[in-house]
Amino acid sequence: MCGIVGIYSNKDISKELYYSLYSMQHRGQESCGIAVVDNEKINYKKDMGLVSDVFKEKDLAELKGNMGIGHVRYSTAGGSYMANCQPLVGSCRKRKLALAHNGNLVNANYLRDMLEEDGYMFQANSDTEVILYILARYYKGDIVESLKITMDYIKGAYSLVIMGEDELVAVRDPQGFRPLILGKKDEKFIFASEDCAIDIIGGEVIRDVEPGEIIVIKNGEMKSYFYSENYKTVKRSCIFEHIYFARNDATIDNVNVYNFRIKCGEILAKDDKVKADIVVPVPDSGWAGAIGYSNASGLPVSEGLVKNRYVGRTFIKPTQEEREIGVKIKLNPLSSVVKGKSLILVDDSVVRGTTSKAIVKSLKDAGASEIHLRITSPPVKYSCYYGIDTPNRSKLIASQNDVEGIKEYIGCDSLEFLEIEGMLEATGQKSKFCKACFDGDYPVKKIDREELLSC
Amino acid sequence: MCGIVGIYSNKDISKELYYSLYSMQHRGQESCGIAVVDNEKINYKKDMGLVSDVFKEKDLAELKGNMGIGHVRYSTAGGSYMANCQPLVGSCRKRKLALAHNGNLVNANYLRDMLEEDGYMFQANSDTEVILYILARYYKGDIVESLKITMDYIKGAYSLVIMGEDELVAVRDPQGFRPLILGKKDEKFIFASEDCAIDIIGGEVIRDVEPGEIIVIKNGEMKSYFYSENYKTVKRSCIFEHIYFARNDATIDNVNVYNFRIKCGEILAKDDKVKADIVVPVPDSGWAGAIGYSNASGLPVSEGLVKNRYVGRTFIKPTQEEREIGVKIKLNPLSSVVKGKSLILVDDSVVRGTTSKAIVKSLKDAGASEIHLRITSPPVKYSCYYGIDTPNRSKLIASQNDVEGIKEYIGCDSLEFLEIEGMLEATGQKSKFCKACFDGDYPVKKIDREELLSC
Amino acid sequence: MCGIVGIYSNKDISKELYYSLYSMQHRGQESCGIAVVDNEKINYKKDMGLVSDVFKEKDLAELKGNMGIGHVRYSTAGGSYMANCQPLVGSCRKRKLALAHNGNLVNANYLRDMLEEDGYMFQANSDTEVILYILARYYKGDIVESLKITMDYIKGAYSLVIMGEDELVAVRDPQGFRPLILGKKDEKFIFASEDCAIDIIGGEVIRDVEPGEIIVIKNGEMKSYFYSENYKTVKRSCIFEHIYFARNDATIDNVNVYNFRIKCGEILAKDDKVKADIVVPVPDSGWAGAIGYSNASGLPVSEGLVKNRYVGRTFIKPTQEEREIGVKIKLNPLSSVVKGKSLILVDDSVVRGTTSKAIVKSLKDAGASEIHLRITSPPVKYSCYYGIDTPNRSKLIASQNDVEGIKEYIGCDSLEFLEIEGMLEATGQKSKFCKACFDGDYPVKKIDREELLSC
Amino acid sequence: MCGIVGIYSNKDISKELYYSLYSMQHRGQESCGIAVVDNEKINYKKDMGLVSDVFKEKDLAELKGNMGIGHVRYSTAGGSYMANCQPLVGSCRKRKLALAHNGNLVNANYLRDMLEEDGYMFQANSDTEVILYILARYYKGDIVESLKITMDYIKGAYSLVIMGEDELVAVRDPQGFRPLILGKKDEKFIFASEDCAIDIIGGEVIRDVEPGEIIVIKNGEMKSYFYSENYKTVKRSCIFEHIYFARNDATIDNVNVYNFRIKCGEILAKDDKVKADIVVPVPDSGWAGAIGYSNASGLPVSEGLVKNRYVGRTFIKPTQEEREIGVKIKLNPLSSVVKGKSLILVDDSVVRGTTSKAIVKSLKDAGASEIHLRITSPPVKYSCYYGIDTPNRSKLIASQNDVEGIKEYIGCDSLEFLEIEGMLEATGQKSKFCKACFDGDYPVKKIDREELLSC
Repeated sequence: MCGIVGIYSNKDISKELYYSLYSMQHRGQESCGIAVVDNEKINYKKDMGLVSDVFKEKDLAELKGNMGIGHVRYSTAGGSYMANCQPLVGSCRKRKLALAHNGNLVNANYLRDMLEEDGYMFQANSDTEVILYILARYYKGDIVESLKITMDYIKGAYSLVIMGEDELVAVRDPQGFRPLILGKKDEKFIFASEDCAIDIIGGEVIRDVEPGEIIVIKNGEMKSYFYSENYKTVKRSCIFEHIYFARNDATIDNVNVYNFRIKCGEILAKDDKVKADIVVPVPDSGWAGAIGYSNASGLPVSEGLVKNRYVGRTFIKPTQEEREIGVKIKLNPLSSVVKGKSLILVDDSVVRGTTSKAIVKSLKDAGASEIHLRITSPPVKYSCYYGIDTPNRSKLIASQNDVEGIKEYIGCDSLEFLEIEGMLEATGQKSKFCKACFDGDYPVKKIDREELLSC
Repeated sequence: MCGIVGIYSNKDISKELYYSLYSMQHRGQESCGIAVVDNEKINYKKDMGLVSDVFKEKDLAELKGNMGIGHVRYSTAGGSYMANCQPLVGSCRKRKLALAHNGNLVNANYLRDMLEEDGYMFQANSDTEVILYILARYYKGDIVESLKITMDYIKGAYSLVIMGEDELVAVRDPQGFRPLILGKKDEKFIFASEDCAIDIIGGEVIRDVEPGEIIVIKNGEMKSYFYSENYKTVKRSCIFEHIYFARNDATIDNVNVYNFRIKCGEILAKDDKVKADIVVPVPDSGWAGAIGYSNASGLPVSEGLVKNRYVGRTFIKPTQEEREIGVKIKLNPLSSVVKGKSLILVDDSVVRGTTSKAIVKSLKDAGASEIHLRITSPPVKYSCYYGIDTPNRSKLIASQNDVEGIKEYIGCDSLEFLEIEGMLEATGQKSKFCKACFDGDYPVKKIDREELLSC
Repeated sequence: MCGIVGIYSNKDISKELYYSLYSMQHRGQESCGIAVVDNEKINYKKDMGLVSDVFKEKDLAELKGNMGIGHVRYSTAGGSYMANCQPLVGSCRKRKLALAHNGNLVNANYLRDMLEEDGYMFQANSDTEVILYILARYYKGDIVESLKITMDYIKGAYSLVIMGEDELVAVRDPQGFRPLILGKKDEKFIFASEDCAIDIIGGEVIRDVEPGEIIVIKNGEMKSYFYSENYKTVKRSCIFEHIYFARNDATIDNVNVYNFRIKCGEILAKDDKVKADIVVPVPDSGWAGAIGYSNASGLPVSEGLVKNRYVGRTFIKPTQEEREIGVKIKLNPLSSVVKGKSLILVDDSVVRGTTSKAIVKSLKDAGASEIHLRITSPPVKYSCYYGIDTPNRSKLIASQNDVEGIKEYIGCDSLEFLEIEGMLEATGQKSKFCKACFDGDYPVKKIDREELLSC
Repeated sequence: MCGIVGIYSNKDISKELYYSLYSMQHRGQESCGIAVVDNEKINYKKDMGLVSDVFKEKDLAELKGNMGIGHVRYSTAGGSYMANCQPLVGSCRKRKLALAHNGNLVNANYLRDMLEEDGYMFQANSDTEVILYILARYYKGDIVESLKITMDYIKGAYSLVIMGEDELVAVRDPQGFRPLILGKKDEKFIFASEDCAIDIIGGEVIRDVEPGEIIVIKNGEMKSYFYSENYKTVKRSCIFEHIYFARNDATIDNVNVYNFRIKCGEILAKDDKVKADIVVPVPDSGWAGAIGYSNASGLPVSEGLVKNRYVGRTFIKPTQEEREIGVKIKLNPLSSVVKGKSLILVDDSVVRGTTSKAIVKSLKDAGASEIHLRITSPPVKYSCYYGIDTPNRSKLIASQNDVEGIKEYIGCDSLEFLEIEGMLEATGQKSKFCKACFDGDYPVKKIDREELLSC
C-alpha cells in the first residue's frame, strides 16, 4: 500500500510532484520522497513523515529538474526505517536510475538470496531493492530490454515508475494488481496510482497502464511495449482498492470507485428484511455504502458517529484502563441521534473485528436500542500477498469464525456481509479482479518464506 | 473562537486534560496549553501548535496535579504569538492564579487604557490579560467577590475557567454568548466548551453553566453564585456555534447541534421549487444540512466533492498561476457523480464568498450542468464582536450585495439562504440567541476602537 | 550572570544585535532574545537555547527596526523556563517598553510582595519583572524621572538597557556591580556588558557607564543623568568578573581582564617555594594565570589537560558507575606530558572543589608524581547576592574548611590561594571592588528571603 | 578526515561507542552513526549532525548489542548527504556486514566503473560503498580471505572497522596513512582512530594496528593477519595528523603529537634572529608550537587573540560588507596585549592563506607594531589524495607563490616556515611519514579521475 507518481515535462516539476503526493497521502503516511533528474544528475530528498512535513518550499526549490518521480509509503510494523524510503536512487554502468514501487513481490526473498549468492550487497530490507538490482544487472543502456528480463524474474504485484537520465518509464505487473494510470496536461505526461494525483495539477486522465505494459516517455514521445509478445494479459485488479483503499474520486480499470461503493450498499439492502429506524455510516469509509443502502431501503441516513477531524495525527496512547478513550477520540457516538433507535450500521469491511466491536459498544452505551451491522464486502478470510496490509490469517476474524461467530464477538444484533456475487455485480464486470482475500484464489502463487517484505 | 476545559479531581489530571483538548482541537489550532496545580504551585506548558504536537508523554508526566485547566486557541491574523498562548498564569497577593478564556470583550481596549493609566504593564495583546489584571486587582482571597467586581467591568463574551491554589472556578458572561458546560465523572468535576471534551474521558454532561453564573469547586464541593442577585439573565447564545463552529455531537443551551443542522436543511427544502437530480454537500460542514435537504425533498444525497483527509496540515502555497490547486487540494470534484447532473449544492454558510465561487467553478469544470447553491443559514451581513472570527464588514459579501449579486459573484445557477425565521424555528426556541451577524442586533454594544483583540 | 546589549542606529539593527549576543554567549547559554522598535511597535523573539539555535536568517529579517536590545541568560537551576526569557516587552500608558537586565536585586521579594499587595499580577519569576512593573508604575512619559524613582526602590545589582518607542536608555546601579560599557560606530550608539560585543561589529569602546548613571539616546543625541544629584557613587565593581566570568578581551572599570589574570599568576608565583617541573593550566580559565605563574617562576607552561572543543553542548550523562567519563569528556590528561612530573596546576578559582578533586585524580592516574594546586584568587567563602551563580554557603568548600582541609579533600600535594591583598594589587587599584564572596563585606545588605531570584 | 571506532564486549556497548565518538568529534562534524549487532541482527542509527544532536538517551537504549562500530564524518563540499553517512550496513550471502572507513582510495572511480560494468548498483557516492561491494563480492564466510582479496583491489588510504555477525575486524592499509589503534579494557577490545576514544571509556592503549594488518576479534579472542605474507610494510603515516588534525593527547605510530608540536616550535625558534616582544599563538592549533617557540627563544607567550568558545556552531553568515565580522567572531584581537608590540605570531600551517591574512590585518588594526608569522610546518604545495581535505592545488597559496610572495599576500612583516628536515627531526624518526602535501612524493600514485570521493 503505497502511492507512486512520475512526471515528464519541459520545466521544473518538483512542485507538481509535491501536490500529487499530497493528494495521495491516504496511500501511505510513513515516509515519502521525490527524485528529479537535472542534466544527467539525480537530486532527491526522502524521509520519514508526511509530505507536508518532509518537504518545505526550500526543498522543492532545490529539487530542480524537468522529470521526476515520487513515492508515499504506508507504515507497516517492523520494516519501518530510513533505508526503506523511496524512490531508490543509484547508478549502474555510469547511468543513473531512480525507482518507486507500489506492490509486493511473492518471490522477493528467493531473488534476494540468489543475488546475495552472486555477491550483491543489500542495504535495505524491501522488495524494491531486489527489483532495482535485477534491473541494474541487465541494464546495458536499453531500459525496455532490461525490464523485460527483470519482469521474467519478479513475480507478484508491482506498479513501477522508473527514471533514467533522459526517460521516464511506467510498468505494471502482468496481472495488474495495483493501479497505475496515465494522464496528460499540455506537454506533460503523468503516471500515478490514482486520478486525484492527476486532477490536482490540472491534468486529464488518459487511460490505465495495461497489465504487463511498459510505457516509455523519451524526447517528448511516448512508446508502449509489452512484457512479452506472446503474453496474454489476465487482469487481476485488486478489488480491495475499490472497497477501501482508493479515494472515492478514483476510477481504476474502468470501475468508478464511488459508484461501486454506492452499488454495494444498494445490493446489500435489496434483500435485507431487518426493521430499523436509520442508517448510520462508520465514517469515513462507510459513507458511500450507507448512502447506497439508504437509497435502496428508503431509510434515512443519519450521522450517528462524529469523527475527530484531527485524528490521523499521532497522539499519546491511552493506557489499558483508559481503553475506551482510544475509540472515542476517533469516533464519538451522537446520543441525540442514536438514543432509543434501531440502527443499520454500515461499514466497508471487517478485518480483525476489534474496531467494529468497540464501535458497537460505544453506540449501545449511547443508547442505541438495536444495531444491525452491514458490511459492504464479503468476509476477509485470507491474507494478501500483493501489497494490502492485512494481518496474518490467524488474526482475521472471518478465517476463524462463521458469520454467527463474528456477530457474537462484535456484539451486534444482526450481521450481514455482501456476498462475492453481489460485489462482482457492483463492479459491472465479472471476471477481472483479484479477490483472493475473500476466496483464497491467488492469481500468483506465493513462494514460501517466513516474512513478507513490503511495498 | 477557542476551547477551554477545567477538571477538578483527586488524582493526576493532565492526561484527561490532554484528551479533552484533543477532542476540541476544531475550536483552535494555533496554540494550546495546560496548567495544573500541585501543592499550591502551578505548573504549565503552552506553545504554538496542535495539542498532539505540543504535548508529549514526558510533558504530561511532568504536569502533576489534581486540578487543572486547558486551552486551545484559534489562529487569527496578526496577534498570533507566544505571549498570547493560554492559560495565563500569574501570582497576586502571594496566591497563584491561572485563567483560560473563550470569547471577546467589547471594552477591552477601554479597560486596558484605564489599567495602563493606573501603572499596569501589559505583556501580551489579548483580552485575557485585561480580565486577569482586573481580577488580580480586586482579588483579596475571595475569588467570588473579586469575580463579581470583575464582571461589572468587563463587557462582551467570556466563558472562563479559573484555577486558584485550591479551587476551580467556571464563569459565563451574563448573555451566555459562548458555550460552557458542566460534567461529572465519579468524583471529578469537568467544565468544557463542548460535550465531546466530557464524553472523551467518560464523563456525563450535567448542564450548561448559566449566563452570569459563577461555579466554584472547592474541597470536593460545588457551589453556584450569580454575578448579581438582581440581575435577570438574558440569554444570547451564539447561533453561529450551532450553524458552523461546534461539532455535531454538541448540545448547547438545550439545542442539539446535529438536529438543528438537519432541520435547517429540511426547512430550506420545504418551499424550494427548483428541479435537480442530486443533493451534494460541501464537506464536512454541509453534510448535515444536505441530509436534511434530502430528507425533505426526496432527492438523493451524493458525494460530489471528495475531501482530502490530510488537509488542515500546512502545505506549500500554490502560486497565483496554480491557484486552482488551492481548492482542489482540499475538495476534488467527483466527475462520475456530477457530470451532466443538476445539483443542489448545500453549505452551512457564506462569509466572503470566495470558497463557494471556487467550488462552483470546479464542479462546472467537472461537468455539472446546473448548480443550485443552498445555504442553511441567513446571509452574514455584520461582523461579530463576540469571538467568531468574521472579517471586517467590507469583506462580507452579503453586506455589500443582495442575493442576486452574490449569485452573480459565485456563478451558480440559483441561490437560496435559510431565512432568520426558519433558522430560529429549527432551534425549537424563539428568543434566546445572538444573531447579530445576520441582523445587526448586537446584545452588548461595542465600544469603539480600531482593532478587536481576540480570545 | 547574563549579557545585555542595546544599539541605537538609523538602519536595521537586528543582525548587529545578533553578532553582539553571539560574542557574549559565554555570559549565558540558557535563553536569549532580541527586541527591536519599528514605528512605535516593538517586535521581538526570545526562546530557550543558544543564539545560533534561536535566531535564523529569517528571524532577523523579520525583526526590522533601527533600535533594539538583546539578552543572553545564564542557566540557573529551577527558575529556568520560557516566561523568564528576556527582553521583557510590555506596554504602559500607551507607550511600549522593553527591558533587559543583568544582575540581581537584593530586595526583589520585598518589592514583589508590595506590588502584589497593590493588585499587580506577576507572570514570571524574576527580578526583572519587578523592575519593569515599578518603572511602569511611575512612567508617565519621562523615562528619566521614572527611572530615578525606580532606582530609589530597587537595591542590589542591575545593569539595564531599556527601549522606549523613540529612545534607548542604559542604567547601571549606584555600586556598579555588573559591567556596562558605551561604544560608538559611525552614527551608532552601543551599550553592552563586554567589549567583545562592541568590537565584533567594528565599534569603538568609549567608556564605562558610571555607577548610578542613566544615559539616554534620543533623536541621535546622548544625554547623561545621575540617579541622584547628591549621590556620591561608591564603585563596587564585581571582582569575580575579572577573575572568571568576563572574556580575556574585556576591560571593565579601567581594569584590563587579561593583564589582571596574568598578574595574579605572577604574584602567586613570587613567593612560592615549591619545586616543580612544569606549569599546567586548567583550560580554558587557568591559562592566563598559568602564563603569569610561568613568567614569574621561570617554569615552562605545558598543556597537561586536553579540552574537548565540543563540550558545552549537552551530552548524555554518564551513570554513576561511569562517573569518571564525566570529567574526561571535558578534560583528558595528557600522559606524555605529565607522567613522572611534578606539576604546578593553575586554576582561576575553587568553588565547590569537586571539579578540582576530579582533575587531580585524573592527572595522578595519568602518572603525575606531584600536584601543587595554585589558585589565582582567594578562597570563596560567601555566597553572592549580586548575580554570580555561587551556590549556597554550605556548599562552598572554603566556607566549611581551611586551606589544609581543602587540600585534603582535593587530594593534591600542596595548595595555595592568592590572597586578597595580592588580588587587589593585581588590579592596580585598591578600593573600588566588591569582593564579598571572599570576605563577606557586602556593599548592599541582602533583604532576608528564602530564595534568590536571578538575572 | 573521519573518525572510526569499534568495540567488542560482552555487554551492551552503544553508550561506550557514543562517548568514544563524542571524544573524536573534532575528526568530523557533518554526520555520525552507530551500528551494533544483536543476535545476528544489525541495528543502526546514522544522521547528519553532531554526535550530541543525533543520539539521545532513547536511541542508545534501542541500540542493543555487545559489539558495535561507529563513525564521525567530516563535511566536504558537495558530497554531503544522508546516503553517505556511515557505518554502511548491508547483507550478503545471508550474512550481515557493517563497515566504517577513514581515508580515501585513489582508485575508487576505476573500481566503481568496474563493478557497475558487472551489474552492481551504487546507491551512494563514496569510496566506502566501493570497499563494501568488493568485500561482499568475495565474502563467502571467511572475512580474512575476502579482505585479502579486497585489499588487492583497493589502493590508497583506508583504516576500517568491520562488523560481521560474530566478529569485529580492524584493517589498516599497507602504508598506514590513517591512524588506527588497539585498546583494551577488561574483557573489551577497542579499535579507534585516536587515543582519546579509548581513554574516555577507561581503556588502555595497547598498540597501533600495523600497516597491512587485519585484526579479528571473535569468540573473545584476537587474531592478527597480514594482507600478504610476502608484503613488507612501508609505513607512510600522514604527518598532517601530527601537525594539525589529531588532538594533542594522541600518539600515532609512536610519535606523541603534543611533544612533536612543541618540538616543531622549538626547532623553528632555534635559528630565528628576529627581534620581538611576545609570542602570540593562533588559537587553538598554534598553542603548542607557540609554547615550543617560547621555550627556545625565551620570549613570553601572550594571548593576543581571544577565541569565541561557541564558534564551531553554525551562525548566520555576515554579508560581504560585514566581512570583518567573520574573522572577529572567531578570533578577537586583544588590544591591551598587542598594542605597540612586535609579535611572533605562531600557527601550525598555511593552506589558502586567507585566514592568516585576516588575522594579521585584525592584529594590526588592534595596534600591533610588527607581526612576524612563524609556521610550524613547511609550505603546503600539493593536494592530498589520502583523506585530508586540502583544496585543489591551484588554491594552495604555496603552490603558486614563494615565501616572499606569501608574505606579501598575508601582509606580515616577516614569514618563516619550518623546513621538512626540521619537521622530521621533531618526530624523532626519519623515514616513515607521508609528507606528499609538502614535497609531492606520493607513496601511492593517484589514478586519474576528475573528482575525488572522500572518506
